[in-house]
Amino acid sequence: MPGKLLYARPVLSPYAHARIVNINTSQALAVPGVHAIYTGETLPLEGYNPGERTKSPLARQEVLWAGQPVALVLAESEAAAADGAAAIEVDYEPLPVVVDPLAAMEPGAPLTRLLEKKQAGEIAGGEAHAAVAGGEEEDGQESRPLSENVSDRSHLRQGDIEAGWREAEVVVERRYRTSVVHQSYLEPQSITVMPSPDGTQYTVWASAQGLFTTRTEIAEALNLPERQIHVESVPIGGAFGGKFTLLEPLVVAAARASRRPVRLVFTRSEDLLAANPAPQAIIAVRLGARRDGTLVALQGEVIFDSGAYAGAAAGLAGFILASTYRCPNIDIRCYEVLTNKVGVGAYRAPGAPQATFALESTVDELCSELGMDPLEFRLKNGLREGDPALDRRRPRWPRIGLLDCLEKVREHPLWARRRELLTPPPELSGWKVGIGLAVGGWPGGTEPAAAACRLDRDGRLTVIVGTVDLTGTDSALTLIAAEGLGVSPELVQIEHGSSDNVPHSGSTGGSKITYTMGPAVLAAVRDARQQILEVAAELLEAAVEDLEIERDRVVVRGVPDRSVTLQKIGQVTTAFGSRYQPIYGRGRSALGSSPMYAAHVARVAVDPETGEVRVLDYLAAQDVGFAINPAEIEGQIHGGVTQGIGWALFEGFVYDEHGQLLTATLMDYALPHSTDVPTITPLLVEVPSEHGPFGAKGVGEPPVVPVAGAIANAVKAALGVRLTHLPMTPERVLRALQQQS
Amino acid sequence: MPGKLLYARPVLSPYAHARIVNINTSQALAVPGVHAIYTGETLPLEGYNPGERTKSPLARQEVLWAGQPVALVLAESEAAAADGAAAIEVDYEPLPVVVDPLAAMEPGAPLTRLLEKKQAGEIAGGEAHAAVAGGEEEDGQESRPLSENVSDRSHLRQGDIEAGWREAEVVVERRYRTSVVHQSYLEPQSITVMPSPDGTQYTVWASAQGLFTTRTEIAEALNLPERQIHVESVPIGGAFGGKFTLLEPLVVAAARASRRPVRLVFTRSEDLLAANPAPQAIIAVRLGARRDGTLVALQGEVIFDSGAYAGAAAGLAGFILASTYRCPNIDIRCYEVLTNKVGVGAYRAPGAPQATFALESTVDELCSELGMDPLEFRLKNGLREGDPALDRRRPRWPRIGLLDCLEKVREHPLWARRRELLTPPPELSGWKVGIGLAVGGWPGGTEPAAAACRLDRDGRLTVIVGTVDLTGTDSALTLIAAEGLGVSPELVQIEHGSSDNVPHSGSTGGSKITYTMGPAVLAAVRDARQQILEVAAELLEAAVEDLEIERDRVVVRGVPDRSVTLQKIGQVTTAFGSRYQPIYGRGRSALGSSPMYAAHVARVAVDPETGEVRVLDYLAAQDVGFAINPAEIEGQIHGGVTQGIGWALFEGFVYDEHGQLLTATLMDYALPHSTDVPTITPLLVEVPSEHGPFGAKGVGEPPVVPVAGAIANAVKAALGVRLTHLPMTPERVLRALQQQS
Repeated sequence: MPGKLLYARPVLSPYAHARIVNINTSQALAVPGVHAIYTGETLPLEGYNPGERTKSPLARQEVLWAGQPVALVLAESEAAAADGAAAIEVDYEPLPVVVDPLAAMEPGAPLTRLLEKKQAGEIAGGEAHAAVAGGEEEDGQESRPLSENVSDRSHLRQGDIEAGWREAEVVVERRYRTSVVHQSYLEPQSITVMPSPDGTQYTVWASAQGLFTTRTEIAEALNLPERQIHVESVPIGGAFGGKFTLLEPLVVAAARASRRPVRLVFTRSEDLLAANPAPQAIIAVRLGARRDGTLVALQGEVIFDSGAYAGAAAGLAGFILASTYRCPNIDIRCYEVLTNKVGVGAYRAPGAPQATFALESTVDELCSELGMDPLEFRLKNGLREGDPALDRRRPRWPRIGLLDCLEKVREHPLWARRRELLTPPPELSGWKVGIGLAVGGWPGGTEPAAAACRLDRDGRLTVIVGTVDLTGTDSALTLIAAEGLGVSPELVQIEHGSSDNVPHSGSTGGSKITYTMGPAVLAAVRDARQQILEVAAELLEAAVEDLEIERDRVVVRGVPDRSVTLQKIGQVTTAFGSRYQPIYGRGRSALGSSPMYAAHVARVAVDPETGEVRVLDYLAAQDVGFAINPAEIEGQIHGGVTQGIGWALFEGFVYDEHGQLLTATLMDYALPHSTDVPTITPLLVEVPSEHGPFGAKGVGEPPVVPVAGAIANAVKAALGVRLTHLPMTPERVLRALQQQS
Repeated sequence: MPGKLLYARPVLSPYAHARIVNINTSQALAVPGVHAIYTGETLPLEGYNPGERTKSPLARQEVLWAGQPVALVLAESEAAAADGAAAIEVDYEPLPVVVDPLAAMEPGAPLTRLLEKKQAGEIAGGEAHAAVAGGEEEDGQESRPLSENVSDRSHLRQGDIEAGWREAEVVVERRYRTSVVHQSYLEPQSITVMPSPDGTQYTVWASAQGLFTTRTEIAEALNLPERQIHVESVPIGGAFGGKFTLLEPLVVAAARASRRPVRLVFTRSEDLLAANPAPQAIIAVRLGARRDGTLVALQGEVIFDSGAYAGAAAGLAGFILASTYRCPNIDIRCYEVLTNKVGVGAYRAPGAPQATFALESTVDELCSELGMDPLEFRLKNGLREGDPALDRRRPRWPRIGLLDCLEKVREHPLWARRRELLTPPPELSGWKVGIGLAVGGWPGGTEPAAAACRLDRDGRLTVIVGTVDLTGTDSALTLIAAEGLGVSPELVQIEHGSSDNVPHSGSTGGSKITYTMGPAVLAAVRDARQQILEVAAELLEAAVEDLEIERDRVVVRGVPDRSVTLQKIGQVTTAFGSRYQPIYGRGRSALGSSPMYAAHVARVAVDPETGEVRVLDYLAAQDVGFAINPAEIEGQIHGGVTQGIGWALFEGFVYDEHGQLLTATLMDYALPHSTDVPTITPLLVEVPSEHGPFGAKGVGEPPVVPVAGAIANAVKAALGVRLTHLPMTPERVLRALQQQS
């Protein structure tokens, strides 16, 4: 047996950029209960690559951000591990720190990495990026000289941007900044690994969004065959994109080296310092329109601060910029820049909240210049079926629900009677009230999916999937299976397993599990249903075509007393010596994507004395294709809008000039409190998908996308000033007011 | 969390039959580390039934055998549990003990159960029984008065037995006894149960032969929904029929009551005292033949000592008696008798070693009377295709391999030159050598089975099954899957899981896993293969019909440089955004049975001074249908023959007149040692099954069936005396020699 569990504690670098001169572990090893201490040198990974987080979980020669793990202590207790970590002495030689991404882009800027060459990298958000790669995206003829810190760039074009400017009668341009925002899942990064007695197999319980992704990432980092890694399905406490594999290879390597089970659970501060939050963005948008409100030119520059590792989904943000309005002339340049900050990851609609905040704020400014109602402008210019798309695999947009959401919003009193709603509530006397509109969307991830199902001897249907249930997808799959079989949901049980034995599933992210796994489950259930009817036909001496499933039994249509229960069918198909095969269905899917859109209205009050912004009321219309589980979808909308309020008003990493994170606890990093969240009214719009189960589309990402734009537009309506920097803290609001006057 | 593991230790009754007056646990509860003590009264099962072992794992009012658990101690350590168990004081009031099954059958005999009425029961061997139930089996008009201790009786008939006796010119009749024999698996009965934090779910790791059987038995004993029980697949240390669920409900109940994880592992003595060994049998056989050697009458009386619970497969033994020779007139009466001994269970070919020892010994005597060569007699009278069968579901025998095995034996030097082999080896000078022949078979269990398979991104095929791999079935399934896909076995991995997520499988027993799961795996793989070819056809721009799988890739037939690897197909069918569905196949089976036969030859030496019997040489011809994995089949034959040598010469429970087991340790219970086992020569005969995978039949049970008969016939050949009582110990051999002289 591999012995008792060891508790792991990382030692994090206090420097944002430094050379590791020496690590002295002798004091720490003397701490009672400390079992082993590993560093980048003593725990080498066969797949080591300093350009990828999962493949260089401990720094070797050079630390790249304040918070980077440089050592890992394994001990018999949490306390011993913490004591051991505190006793480790690391000598650093500080190196120049790169903090500002704009400065970092300039030729001659200090380099983020000096000792270990960066290598091509990827982040989990890259999978979302891959969904929309292609199209007109390309490397343009960049005349501008750039620093080596620029790790990626892309160029999306359509039409002739110069012709657009010539045609434009009204032009507005703005520049925006957003902050690093953390996914703030309830459960921090958490991994437990058990080695097999012979040390060749590793069973992994990880707070991870996907079994198969995790298996692959571990296998690649350690250069092990995938089948030596066994990832178990466990309930996890939230993810929002931040748990596409990070520390799992480290913990497997530690379990391998120590031949003991190992658990690593980040503290909240470690999670803020050393996980993978959403990237900071600097986005310039320039829009040109004719006087009649026709959009004719859209130019953008998207700069994503990628932190210490390449891969920040800037290109995806560029694609999002180009995916809301029909515009004949588009030119968008995207850059990812390395700095000495924590590496970034995916967070609910990666890149979309940043791009949409910039776009929708600029659209609002354009409407002001045009003197045009912002809803009418969006109805006039919003994308619709048949418009050209910047996607090689689908050059025209399918039927999407953007305009339908706008129509829904137009009818709602919060928008229709908005001029009557500008009085602040009595307790906010003296505050200014404004109402803002923004739209936004998400292209929709896809991934092949398979499912199996079984009729058990108790007459219940067991559905087996490899998904991680993060967002209530099990409930949706239950409803899909029940509908497919024709029984009540109480008779359906969703089961998971390990990466060894479940059908293939993508990771839970990209709003794609109900969308892609739903059809696989439906196909599996229909396969099983046919098998059930065939057995029933023999038992009832009837034709399959004459049978139907009602409640818990198969009945002969029109002859209610000729029936056989599903329990009986479950029994005869599993009984010793039976001549009936077990009921066992399988389904598979590989769908095209179904882009999903939302239109949001925010009513805010702003205190002109303090700059404080409060959201009073919120309306979120969203095209969900078909609402399989309306309560759960509304929950997704409530959660997404709440996170968007965080982006808009509260959340953001603050760094000093040395790259030190000043917001490394939840005392300093401001999450929205329940009192900051107003009544949120979801309006479900159903423009059926041609692919999704019963017409359903993904629902998880869109609710966060338009929020900051809607709130910024409401603040502008309230105060007449344009906030261009997220979060819109009281200080920033006051400063904007002062600059206006 | 449910806390740390508790260790369980049972308290066993020292009386074979007694009333429980009082159980005093106060001393035991004071032992440091003892957490809880349960008795039949304080740990009631909702499904309590004193007639079934799994439903009455702790005695309530009455103990029924010496060794019956009356209490269970849970403690923080093994040592504390043992100390606690030793400190429990139980007051018993002894009751009359029923030991001898023949006496027990007589009207007026003391009753095995006095206080708690027995109820209809079943044992795991019952599933084998069910396989052959029906046919001519019936309750005959029993004129003979019988005690209530007789728990079951059946009557198999064919033709007119009285007419048979009238036709018979030579009649022989003998009466035989066999002993209780233990399965002697390496790992004793072992169960660990973890309750969920809310106490409603139970995860079970059991040394059990079937996931689904165990789940059902636990659910029924505790009256819980099956889906609250989660049985994990674990490697187990042997079973041979003795692990079809015994103590699992007890340990689940203890975990439920204590809200802690609980482990119970029997000591070897507990396993001998309180598991479920094979039943003792008393069998009379009377055969009648014409002078020309034609068998015309077969009469049998089969009495199985069922121990304290009903269900001992006597009817199956009767069916086995009737399933070797064509005989127009058959009359077999079978009885199961309750006594105050441990309840019995299944053991490799339940009922067949006992019945076949009796039948083949009597046939040998008949051949002597007829002056006929015993192989020629069997060739003349052995069952062949088209002969009537005592099975309602298949009234005629299919093509079986009995005669083929005999032909094979006839050619082998051990039989062909047997008259030259009667000299003892030099070191056994003075011993007598004899060579004996016996045949025997097994009807073949069947059970519905399902399987799934998946092509992974590393190009390997994962096959998912719910079987428990006891006998190398995983290897056979690997070969079947590799053959079905057209790849090397290295590319195939068999995976298991829990009762929650695997396809349905019967328990591993009855020689039916390769036989029934093999076709399901083959169907699943063929389903996947078709899917693979469809993807390859697109990738290679070729027609599916033109493709074939070679080694690790799909190639266009005749165009070797147009190919795509399975790894590539695995990747494109699981990649983010891919338009190819995952490769996921499913297969199902529900077969008719394929009876399997063996013919054995034993060459033995007997010391006329001491009565010691040594097996010098052994030949085992067996019809395996098709040898999927010859090495493993030969291993099964070696193991089965070795166990048969145990039955024949060494093993047997010995009870005193108070029902005390005198052989409760491996010092007293004599297993064969390696020096007792000669070179065993397997001869594989291949008469293809019409159902099994590639024509394969089951192979596990037959090797044990004819052994005792072959050895007894060899002893007769050596000494001229007929041994009728197993095991044939030196004492019994000497006594038989004395009686002869």
